[in-house]
Amino acid sequence: MDAPSDTFDLVVLGGGTGGYTAAFRASQLGLRTALVEAGAIGGTCLHRGCIPTKVMLESADLLARMRDAATFGLRAGDVGADMIAIAARRSEIVKRLTGGLLSLVRKNHVELIHGIGRLEGPTSVRVSLDDGHEGGERLLKAVNVILATGSRPRSLPGIEPDGRVVMTSDDIVASDRVPSSLIVVGAGAVGVEFASFYRDLGTEVTLVEYLPSLVPLEDAEVGRTLERSFRRRGITVVTNARLDTASLVANEAGVTVMVDSASGGERRELHAERMLVATGRAANTSGIGLESTDVEVVAGVVKVDPLMRTHEEHVFAIGDMVGGLLLAHAAAHEGIVAVETIAGLAPQPVDYNVMPRATYCRPQIASVGRTEEELKRDGVPYVSGRFPWLASAKAVIGGDHEGFAKILSSTATDQVLGVHLIGPHVTDLVSEGALALILAADASVLAHTVHPHPSLSEALAEAAMAVSGQSINA
Amino acid sequence: MDAPSDTFDLVVLGGGTGGYTAAFRASQLGLRTALVEAGAIGGTCLHRGCIPTKVMLESADLLARMRDAATFGLRAGDVGADMIAIAARRSEIVKRLTGGLLSLVRKNHVELIHGIGRLEGPTSVRVSLDDGHEGGERLLKAVNVILATGSRPRSLPGIEPDGRVVMTSDDIVASDRVPSSLIVVGAGAVGVEFASFYRDLGTEVTLVEYLPSLVPLEDAEVGRTLERSFRRRGITVVTNARLDTASLVANEAGVTVMVDSASGGERRELHAERMLVATGRAANTSGIGLESTDVEVVAGVVKVDPLMRTHEEHVFAIGDMVGGLLLAHAAAHEGIVAVETIAGLAPQPVDYNVMPRATYCRPQIASVGRTEEELKRDGVPYVSGRFPWLASAKAVIGGDHEGFAKILSSTATDQVLGVHLIGPHVTDLVSEGALALILAADASVLAHTVHPHPSLSEALAEAAMAVSGQSINA
Repeated sequence: MDAPSDTFDLVVLGGGTGGYTAAFRASQLGLRTALVEAGAIGGTCLHRGCIPTKVMLESADLLARMRDAATFGLRAGDVGADMIAIAARRSEIVKRLTGGLLSLVRKNHVELIHGIGRLEGPTSVRVSLDDGHEGGERLLKAVNVILATGSRPRSLPGIEPDGRVVMTSDDIVASDRVPSSLIVVGAGAVGVEFASFYRDLGTEVTLVEYLPSLVPLEDAEVGRTLERSFRRRGITVVTNARLDTASLVANEAGVTVMVDSASGGERRELHAERMLVATGRAANTSGIGLESTDVEVVAGVVKVDPLMRTHEEHVFAIGDMVGGLLLAHAAAHEGIVAVETIAGLAPQPVDYNVMPRATYCRPQIASVGRTEEELKRDGVPYVSGRFPWLASAKAVIGGDHEGFAKILSSTATDQVLGVHLIGPHVTDLVSEGALALILAADASVLAHTVHPHPSLSEALAEAAMAVSGQSINA
Repeated sequence: MDAPSDTFDLVVLGGGTGGYTAAFRASQLGLRTALVEAGAIGGTCLHRGCIPTKVMLESADLLARMRDAATFGLRAGDVGADMIAIAARRSEIVKRLTGGLLSLVRKNHVELIHGIGRLEGPTSVRVSLDDGHEGGERLLKAVNVILATGSRPRSLPGIEPDGRVVMTSDDIVASDRVPSSLIVVGAGAVGVEFASFYRDLGTEVTLVEYLPSLVPLEDAEVGRTLERSFRRRGITVVTNARLDTASLVANEAGVTVMVDSASGGERRELHAERMLVATGRAANTSGIGLESTDVEVVAGVVKVDPLMRTHEEHVFAIGDMVGGLLLAHAAAHEGIVAVETIAGLAPQPVDYNVMPRATYCRPQIASVGRTEEELKRDGVPYVSGRFPWLASAKAVIGGDHEGFAKILSSTATDQVLGVHLIGPHVTDLVSEGALALILAADASVLAHTVHPHPSLSEALAEAAMAVSGQSINA
C-alpha cells in the first residue's frame, strides 16, 4: 500500500472545537493546513458534550416555563415532553452543525483528512486513512503540529460503566429514554446539567458528590444556592458522599450502591434504574506517538506553556488534553493562541483567569475570575458586591429570580477580580464580566456603565455598585 | 393653611427612574434629600412604559415559544393567551416593584413628598401636598434642585386621542382588551413593541411609519431585517407613509384613515378597530415654575450641559425633560452624574454614544454607539463585521435565529464605534458592547475575549473577528 507524502505548514491532530478553530485561523493567516480527525468533525463538544446537552436543556427550560404558563396569563393544555422527539432534534441539530463545519472547512481551504493520526517524530504525522473506501495511509510532513486529541469520560476506580445501566456522559447523551430514577455521581458541570434535565422530565434524581458542595469549582455561595434550588425541585442531594464502589450491584433490576457520609451521616443505600458516572475526564494522550517526541505528559495531561508550546519545538497542544478548564471555548482560544504564536503574531498568553465558565442547569451558573475562597486562600483583600435577582425588574418580569450576581473587587485598587452568577441567562451575561477582566476594569467603571432598563444585565452594574455600598435597586 | 418650610441639601422634582435614582445616590453620598412626586413613585417607566410593556412582551414571547413546542419535542395542547390575566400580572408586578421602591426610599432615608412641586426661584420648591388628607403646602428650601418631571405621549397634529378608540401608549398599556385589528402610527421603539405584542395575540396589525424604515433611529439593516420579520408574521407594514389626519374618522365602528405614500405608492384607506398613536413624547416643562429661574428651554426640552447643569446655578435637569435618549436607564445615569457633580465627585460627563438602546419586540433590537449611516455622514472610515444568528450554535439550539450581530470599528484604530444587534436576547447582550465602548476597546480585544460556548454572546466576538475577516464559525 502506498504512503503518499504531503507537506503542510501546519497539521492539526484532532477535529474538535480546539482543533478546527486552530485550523480555520491558521488558514486565514495563510498557513497551508491539514486537519486530521478519526471521527466526525466537532469532537466531544458537538457530538457528545456541549451541543447535544444544550439541545436537551433548552427543551427542559421551555418545558419548565410552559408548566408556569398560567403565571404568565397563558393557557396550555396537557404539557409534557417526548424524549424521542427531543433526541431526534438533538441529532438533527448536531447533523446541521456538523454540515456547517464541513462548509467552513471548504471555505477556509483546510484539508480535512479522515483517519487516525500518529506522530512519527515531532513534525511527521502518519494517518491511517478512514476514507470509507480502501483505507491506506498518508504520511504528513508539517512545519508545525498542533495536538488536539481531547479527552474521554473517566469513571471511578471500581466502577466499570456498561453503557446501559451504568453510564458515562457519552452513553446518556445518546439515549432517548427517560429513566424513572437516576443516580448521578459527581456534581460538577456535567453532573448537575443531567440532574437538572432529567428532573425536569420527571425522573427521580439522586445527586451524589464527594465534596461538601455542588459545583465545587464555583463560588461556595453559588453551590449552596444551587443545592437549595435542586432540593426544592425534588432532587435528592447527597454531598460529602463516599460511594462504596465495592457494594455496587448493576443489573436488569437497576443499580444499588451504598454511600457513606464523610460528615458523620449514616451509611445509606441508593437504588435507581440507571446510574450516570460524571466524575471527570481523562486526556487522550496515548496512541498518538508522543513517545517519538520530547512532549512531556505530567499528571496525565500534556504539559504546555501559556503559548501552548510543548517541550518539543514545533509541537503545540491545546484543549482537554492539556488539562486547563476542559471547556470548548478554552480549547478554541488555546487553538487561536497556538496558531498566532506559530504565525509570529505574539498573542497574549493564555490566562484561564479571564475565561468564563458556564453551566446550563436550571438555574444557570456562570463565572469568570477568582472565587472568594481562592482570594481568601491567597490572602488577597477584596470587597464583595451582591445583587439578588429578586431585586431585578427584568428577572421578576421573567418569573425567574432565584440566585444573585456577585462581583469581587480588589480592596486596594477596585479592580474586578471575580464575577459569580447564578440565575436567569447568566451563561450569556458572564461575557461582560470576561471583558471587564480582560480589560482590568474597576468595579466603579462597571457600575457607571449604562445598562438597558429593564434588563438582566443591569444586575452586573448593580452588583458593581454594591461593592461601594451604592446599589440603586437593592 | 400653613406652609412649613423645610431645608434640604437636594430636592428632586419628579419620582421617575431618573428622579429616584438621583435621590437614592444623593442620600448614599450623605445629602439630605427630598423627592417630590405627584403620582406614584416610578414614573412613566414603571407605570406606563418599560415595565408594564415588558410584562406583556414576556408573555407574548412565551406564547410564541409555546406555539413552537413541538419543535422542541414538547407537548403543549391548545395554547392561547388570556389578556385579562396578562393585565392582572402586569398590575401585580407594577405594584410589587412600586412597593420595592418605597422600601428603598425608606432604606435610603429619602423624604418622599407626595404633591405637585413648583419652583419659586432656583432653590425653592412649593409643594401642593397630596397626602390623602387635608392637602396643604410645604415650601422646600434646597441647596440644589434636580428637575426630573419626565415627558408625556405626543400625538400628531390633527389627531386628538380619545383614549378608547384612538389611543396613546398611556391608554393602551392600561388596557385589558385585545383588539381584532389595530393601526399603529409610528414605528419607533414604542410602536414596534406594541405591534409585535398584539400580533402575537392575534390582532391584525398595520404599522404605519413616516420614514422609509422601521426603527428609524437604528442601523438601516436592522430596520430592514425587522420589517422582513414583521411581514412574515403577518404585520402589514406601511413605510414612507403620509397619514392624512384630516381624513380620520373614529367612532364606535373603529378607525378609518387615508394614507398617502411618499415613495409613489397609491393612496390607501386603512381601517381597524383601534389606533395607537406612537409618534413621540413631549417634555413636561410647563407648570413647574421654570419662569422663576434662568433655566432655558430650547426646542421643547430643558437645555443642560453634559453634567446635567441648566443655565441656572444649583438647578440640574435629567431624564426625558432634557431630550437625549428618552430612556429610563439614560435618565438614571443622568441622575447619578448630576448628583455626583453636586457632591463634587467629578463624574465623567454624560455621553449618549456609550448608552445602549433596547427594543423588546420580537426579534429584539439593541445597539450602542454609532450607526453605519452616522459614520458615513460624518466621513469616519469604518469596517463592519457581521455574524448571522444562523451561524450561532446557541441560537440554532434556541430555535430563534433571525437577524445578526454587527460590530463597526474604526479603520484607522480598530476601536469599536458601534454595536448593532437584532435577534435573541440582544437587549441583554448589548451591555457587553456598552462596556467595550466605555473602555474604548478595540475590535480585536473583543474578538480575543473568550465567550462561553455555546452562548449567544459569542456572536459579539464572532462579529468582532469578522472585522478582520477572521470569523471562526461563519
